[in-house]
Amino acid sequence: MSTQISMTGRLDPRDSWVAERCPMAATLDVVSTRTAFLVLREAFYGATRFDQFVSRTGVSEPVAAARLKELEAAGLLERRPYQEPGQRTRHEYALTEKGADLLPVLASLMRWGDKWGLDCGARVELKHAGCGGRVGVELACSEGHGVAADGIELAVKPGRRMSA
Amino acid sequence: MSTQISMTGRLDPRDSWVAERCPMAATLDVVSTRTAFLVLREAFYGATRFDQFVSRTGVSEPVAAARLKELEAAGLLERRPYQEPGQRTRHEYALTEKGADLLPVLASLMRWGDKWGLDCGARVELKHAGCGGRVGVELACSEGHGVAADGIELAVKPGRRMSA
Repeated sequence: MSTQISMTGRLDPRDSWVAERCPMAATLDVVSTRTAFLVLREAFYGATRFDQFVSRTGVSEPVAAARLKELEAAGLLERRPYQEPGQRTRHEYALTEKGADLLPVLASLMRWGDKWGLDCGARVELKHAGCGGRVGVELACSEGHGVAADGIELAVKPGRRMSA
Repeated sequence: MSTQISMTGRLDPRDSWVAERCPMAATLDVVSTRTAFLVLREAFYGATRFDQFVSRTGVSEPVAAARLKELEAAGLLERRPYQEPGQRTRHEYALTEKGADLLPVLASLMRWGDKWGLDCGARVELKHAGCGGRVGVELACSEGHGVAADGIELAVKPGRRMSA
């Protein structure tokens, strides 16, 4: 089984260029820690309030506060004020469109851990509401084709220049 | 736009259970650092030898050595001996099936970074060999349906028990 992505055009050979603007690395610059992913998971699972993020992720209050602040600064969560009768104003957090768009990342991490995480014994899975099918992540191309791992090429984006 | 995954059955309400065997967290226990993802990226891009991983990721030799050792121990890379004439035996690294199965994770990180990584200015993209379509990541269910972000439920896997 070939597991390699082919280099095309000016990207071949690989040593002729530097991956200095790698979009994968750019994502990992924004969401860089395990606890950030746990906070995002709970946002997808419906957490909005600070104490929910703390208890549901199992991280400490200072860590949860730091992650929420970072994720808000990165534009993945937005903070909104709320006030219950007799209480001071607090804030709740909701996923922005940018944050919600990380769902395929979380889903693909879940799917891999479910398949290969030997010590995990996962008890939950994502299901398609309505039909009940198990939700997975698939590679597909803009022409509507399913894409196999050995059918992928790396190419220079239109309008971009490559220099070493 | 709803961005929340619904809780079903014994998972509702969310505070009734602890996500102690989360498959997403299990994946992040195996691949936990930015540099591990960079090493995996280069394995997908064709790197096999130590000096290739060092020069193409831009990480230091000690960090590259540590990541390769960890990824081999986790079963994502396998190490194979090779020898060039007049040289001592060296080792090269190749993705295992388990490692290659992380491609949707890397592809979804790339796709997000390309769309939202403002300072990234990515110059490369994944293309479907043959048709040239841009490769993306889609959520789909085992019944063959495309799945929208607001059409996902979290459910207990068949045969699993939940306890708080």
